[in-house]
Amino acid sequence: MSTPLFPTAPDKHALEHGAELSPRFNADGLVVAVAQHADTGEILMLAWMNDEALKLTVDTNIAHYFSRSRNELWKKGETSGQLQDVVELRVDCDQDAVLLKVRPRGDGGACHVGFRSCFYRVLEDGKLIERDAPLHDHD
Amino acid sequence: MSTPLFPTAPDKHALEHGAELSPRFNADGLVVAVAQHADTGEILMLAWMNDEALKLTVDTNIAHYFSRSRNELWKKGETSGQLQDVVELRVDCDQDAVLLKVRPRGDGGACHVGFRSCFYRVLEDGKLIERDAPLHDHD
Repeated sequence: MSTPLFPTAPDKHALEHGAELSPRFNADGLVVAVAQHADTGEILMLAWMNDEALKLTVDTNIAHYFSRSRNELWKKGETSGQLQDVVELRVDCDQDAVLLKVRPRGDGGACHVGFRSCFYRVLEDGKLIERDAPLHDHD
Repeated sequence: MSTPLFPTAPDKHALEHGAELSPRFNADGLVVAVAQHADTGEILMLAWMNDEALKLTVDTNIAHYFSRSRNELWKKGETSGQLQDVVELRVDCDQDAVLLKVRPRGDGGACHVGFRSCFYRVLEDGKLIERDAPLHDHD
């Protein structure tokens, strides 16, 4: 085992009220991360971070995730140009979730399908409706 | 096996563009759910849903989750009064995450620690700072 990048909270009080970032990674070594647009409040995407991705995000203020499908560190936007500048980073009460307030670069999008947000569909009367105009045409 | 409560998308196009709500539950039978305040845009909490919780949420417009710690269906607010009226339900591109826009009842909070949002701590200069005033005193 290599040295952990983050400490473990010694007890519930430290976990919920402590000043130490002490993420509780799951059995796969991941915490869930929500990216919210810093200016509009729109939820852009949900992804996962391992310790390295979280550390890089904190150190560089650019969002890094862990791709579960590719099983590798994922600097969001490295190919698409949709890099995310992190304006604020929050954790939840039990530190198994991270909230990033970001400003996307490039075309301002976050979703590989071509929408600004991954949450482009609303459930209405039992059916999913695409509500947001795509940023650009997508095959 | 009982009858599935939701269909499985037949292909990637249906998953990403179809009108059928076809959630991709993980190996534990869960999808992740983000609750966002419908009026303020504040992210309130992140939790999990099994098929039953999602079905009940869709059918009643009151947020239901699955408690991983208690291993049971969790009607949020049933004891605290912080029921969440669901104003809008969205899914992400690959349908493994749900976004709920909600209005909390009761004291308007969502977090067991006593804050309005579970994300009450901001990372600043490497330390977590409690940024939001608690709704009420909490032991």
